[in-house]
Amino acid sequence: MLGSYNIHTDLALEDKERFESDNVEVSGVSVEEFYDEEREIRITEVKILTENGAKTMGKPIGTYITMEIANLVLPDEEYHKEVAREMASYINNILEFDKSDFTALVVGLGNRDVTPDALGPRVVESLNVTRHIVREYGKYAMGEEESHMISAIAPGVMAQTGMETWEIIKGIVDTIQPDVVFAVDALAARNTKRLNRTIQIADTGIHPGSGVGNHRNEISKETLGIPVIAIGVPTVVDAATIVRDTMENLVSTLESDDKYEIIQDLISPHLYGMFVTPKDIDESIDRIGATIAEGLNVFFTQNAKV
Amino acid sequence: MLGSYNIHTDLALEDKERFESDNVEVSGVSVEEFYDEEREIRITEVKILTENGAKTMGKPIGTYITMEIANLVLPDEEYHKEVAREMASYINNILEFDKSDFTALVVGLGNRDVTPDALGPRVVESLNVTRHIVREYGKYAMGEEESHMISAIAPGVMAQTGMETWEIIKGIVDTIQPDVVFAVDALAARNTKRLNRTIQIADTGIHPGSGVGNHRNEISKETLGIPVIAIGVPTVVDAATIVRDTMENLVSTLESDDKYEIIQDLISPHLYGMFVTPKDIDESIDRIGATIAEGLNVFFTQNAKV
Amino acid sequence: MLGSYNIHTDLALEDKERFESDNVEVSGVSVEEFYDEEREIRITEVKILTENGAKTMGKPIGTYITMEIANLVLPDEEYHKEVAREMASYINNILEFDKSDFTALVVGLGNRDVTPDALGPRVVESLNVTRHIVREYGKYAMGEEESHMISAIAPGVMAQTGMETWEIIKGIVDTIQPDVVFAVDALAARNTKRLNRTIQIADTGIHPGSGVGNHRNEISKETLGIPVIAIGVPTVVDAATIVRDTMENLVSTLESDDKYEIIQDLISPHLYGMFVTPKDIDESIDRIGATIAEGLNVFFTQNAKV
Amino acid sequence: MLGSYNIHTDLALEDKERFESDNVEVSGVSVEEFYDEEREIRITEVKILTENGAKTMGKPIGTYITMEIANLVLPDEEYHKEVAREMASYINNILEFDKSDFTALVVGLGNRDVTPDALGPRVVESLNVTRHIVREYGKYAMGEEESHMISAIAPGVMAQTGMETWEIIKGIVDTIQPDVVFAVDALAARNTKRLNRTIQIADTGIHPGSGVGNHRNEISKETLGIPVIAIGVPTVVDAATIVRDTMENLVSTLESDDKYEIIQDLISPHLYGMFVTPKDIDESIDRIGATIAEGLNVFFTQNAKV
Repeated sequence: MLGSYNIHTDLALEDKERFESDNVEVSGVSVEEFYDEEREIRITEVKILTENGAKTMGKPIGTYITMEIANLVLPDEEYHKEVAREMASYINNILEFDKSDFTALVVGLGNRDVTPDALGPRVVESLNVTRHIVREYGKYAMGEEESHMISAIAPGVMAQTGMETWEIIKGIVDTIQPDVVFAVDALAARNTKRLNRTIQIADTGIHPGSGVGNHRNEISKETLGIPVIAIGVPTVVDAATIVRDTMENLVSTLESDDKYEIIQDLISPHLYGMFVTPKDIDESIDRIGATIAEGLNVFFTQNAKV
Repeated sequence: MLGSYNIHTDLALEDKERFESDNVEVSGVSVEEFYDEEREIRITEVKILTENGAKTMGKPIGTYITMEIANLVLPDEEYHKEVAREMASYINNILEFDKSDFTALVVGLGNRDVTPDALGPRVVESLNVTRHIVREYGKYAMGEEESHMISAIAPGVMAQTGMETWEIIKGIVDTIQPDVVFAVDALAARNTKRLNRTIQIADTGIHPGSGVGNHRNEISKETLGIPVIAIGVPTVVDAATIVRDTMENLVSTLESDDKYEIIQDLISPHLYGMFVTPKDIDESIDRIGATIAEGLNVFFTQNAKV
Repeated sequence: MLGSYNIHTDLALEDKERFESDNVEVSGVSVEEFYDEEREIRITEVKILTENGAKTMGKPIGTYITMEIANLVLPDEEYHKEVAREMASYINNILEFDKSDFTALVVGLGNRDVTPDALGPRVVESLNVTRHIVREYGKYAMGEEESHMISAIAPGVMAQTGMETWEIIKGIVDTIQPDVVFAVDALAARNTKRLNRTIQIADTGIHPGSGVGNHRNEISKETLGIPVIAIGVPTVVDAATIVRDTMENLVSTLESDDKYEIIQDLISPHLYGMFVTPKDIDESIDRIGATIAEGLNVFFTQNAKV
Repeated sequence: MLGSYNIHTDLALEDKERFESDNVEVSGVSVEEFYDEEREIRITEVKILTENGAKTMGKPIGTYITMEIANLVLPDEEYHKEVAREMASYINNILEFDKSDFTALVVGLGNRDVTPDALGPRVVESLNVTRHIVREYGKYAMGEEESHMISAIAPGVMAQTGMETWEIIKGIVDTIQPDVVFAVDALAARNTKRLNRTIQIADTGIHPGSGVGNHRNEISKETLGIPVIAIGVPTVVDAATIVRDTMENLVSTLESDDKYEIIQDLISPHLYGMFVTPKDIDESIDRIGATIAEGLNVFFTQNAKV
């Protein structure tokens, strides 16, 4: 029923919570939780195992690892390095793949001119790009024992390019033929508490909109032919979501037969196409972007060292 | 009563509407409206005349001219030039002042790294700054018959500088002694419909917070000793405001004794410090910033020509 | 002999002048000049007609139109619009092509983080990108009688992406299949007087390095399979070039047998990889970038209107 | 004699070398050198002791510490931290001052839109600004035992503001009354080998132009009334300097009576107002800017800890 409201979240964790709050078991979905006490990071692994599970959750089959990191907004450099290393190990787990020798393309999705959407471009800025160096000077030029060829691009958004992002990425993948794509993106959460405190790593790629059924604009193994690891951080909540959620809490305390219809009518159409984000989003994007780039740099170097 | 909710808007127009909706007359406040049919611009002049009016409106005594421009978001260059010329004429009206020969400092308030807050810095970028040229080569160097000395600064926000903005501006004003300050800023509206469609010109300066009583952080004649014209465009709505407003519409359709208390309790504390803004805010800031800079350029040149 | 010094310029006009100064006729190269007195623009059309001409000039066969515009650095908006319209007409001339219905990809080459190299990305910022709108709403959605589908990308430089630019462009062209590519780039001139005062339009595409023989990194009809119009503005002079040129003027006034060898030895190896550019390059890039974008916008709309 | 050519360098080290190459002793100037073998940093301390020395050197009386760091361009994070710590210790030495309790204003000079001039604004971006936090929550709020109140501003250049930078800084200093100003700026060197490899720390403040006699545009104890520590990194060489220097090497191998006049005549007037800088200047500014910010952060925290 709530589902009919089509509340949108990019976090599998929040889809799952939606059903928990209704005391509903979701068939075809498994959940495991783990708490890293030392670093105060809660890890949740949601696995969507069947088409039925995918339909219920509104997300494609695959594995979604969520790191909830209460202190991710704090400016503690050492702590961010630990988070980066931990992130690298989860990427390592989720990427089932011969990692002894591979090439990767990192795609920084989003609009660098809209602060909460600039996470992807920010990550690309701090990434160690090596493909051109390895091609020119060989594997040992990087000062490591071995080096993967890493390339990267921040293609911009459709309003800037006139192209769907997957069209751009598809073309590049066909030409340079990497073994894996990492797609980094800013996400929409449902709960403001999660903003800038959560990293989701998924082996499903990027599925704009519902993500089920319609492959048209996906950046995924289906469209690119190679594995796509999606790394996302919720930086906004849809404005309509925030209003609807608060109102549902209100109506649950009141009595009315047609309360859900009333809510839907009250939400201003102007709210669609608007988002909610914190005032200090510039600092969060800068700090978390550097952390995710570091996590990728660690992952690429660790595997190169084997 | 609604006032106890402390709904915040930077637009005097919206304060006034608040009372209209309650069918309350506000003593000490006069309102005049005018509709420019040709350009589809609605002009409202709110004058707060007495301390009592100031207290009721939550804004200092002074004149507030609001231009509501439905098409301000459209990319029509000619139309934006007309808006700029019209804006220049309202600045001319509101600035009671010998305009035959004056020097001005334009202050671009806000954070250039947070898109909806970057309006002020964007305006400074496109402004014709002339003070250094006039001082070096004389009044006639600008190719106009006469030239005012215009200087400009985008000082950044407190999180970046460690200083209140008025401390920075006060220091500069004491040193270079302009005759008038123009302070350009992104505003918070109450209604998302007004975002990026409204320009407010006020002779009251900038009053962070309530704007009444506490002069500490003002950028105004009281703190600087010279007239301060504030030019603002609402680019965000406070997230808590949007939720509260929608819920009030809801409760007015339902029945409950303690409904306002319930609403207040339901608003997540995480919402404070968050704002709502449209997804294409980068394009709006760029376009409106250019228009306001053009309006100031026209105003400074017109008066120089007399 | 001077040629043995391998003085580099991206302007065909300057290659030609090199030989004129030696009183050498270049076979396989034709030159026509025209002076637009009203707008003070000197137009030179250099046609390289034969492989021999290409070898002598160090540039591929094709047509190179150079607009020398003394006032291009001035902030006169009306004048820049005239330059844009004139530029559109030269693009129209050089593009031999059925222009009644075509799709185009505009590529903004260069590094947005190095000011004199940011011309291409700056042009993409101000371009009217229409492909996504035409695809969604049809040809008549743009408010013009007809609309070409225009897409654009600023892919960044190899140090940022790890990829050759042509690899990125090749992939995108294969996927979205435009009829023509426009490649906008900052160029290196030989003479500082030309910086930010010259627009070169060529039907040869982009040929990093010598441009003859080695097709590897070209962005051209040979590598992409469709016409590539290159639009460039010289914004830098190679540092070694500037030293060498001045010294050659010096040695021509002195006497020495081995003077050219001496010159070559004296040029510090540190100079290679350095460029010379004016201090106000930020303003020039902004202004000229807007002008070139306007020229392309005019060209795309004019042809759409037919 | 060479002095008559008015070769400009912002590095006292290079002024000194000028005389060494002529085997001239400079009275009123003392020089000490030290080589840090472990970190491969050469330290030179030039002290200008008398007015006579100041006149000869073309720089005001004071102490100039130069760190020559061959590996400053390398992306080795640990090494940059060591450089930052070492820089903090030299600042500590040069600032003769009761450091137990002080407030500081850091000024990032230069133009953020011209890459090699963006060092100052870049440093301000990464600085720990604390004044507003200490004022609000007290000294112990920063999680250190003690905290100085640090504020910062990147005021922009005269073409953007219409104001001399010292006018802006003077005003701010009068209002917030710090105990010391740190002025960070990009410098012009004479030798391209020094670019992005050298940090100069001086207790003389900033003296645009010759720096002797004319106090008008200084940012110094004379104009502000408090100590001004200047921290600079050469990121450009004046284009005319590079040509003149190379030519002087040439003429010293040739014979001519009026060779210096010939050189002067040959230098294109277009070269004035131009600078030489490396192609990868964006990466250097980013890396060195972070290192200098870190050095200042360390200095402010160390002293706070005492």
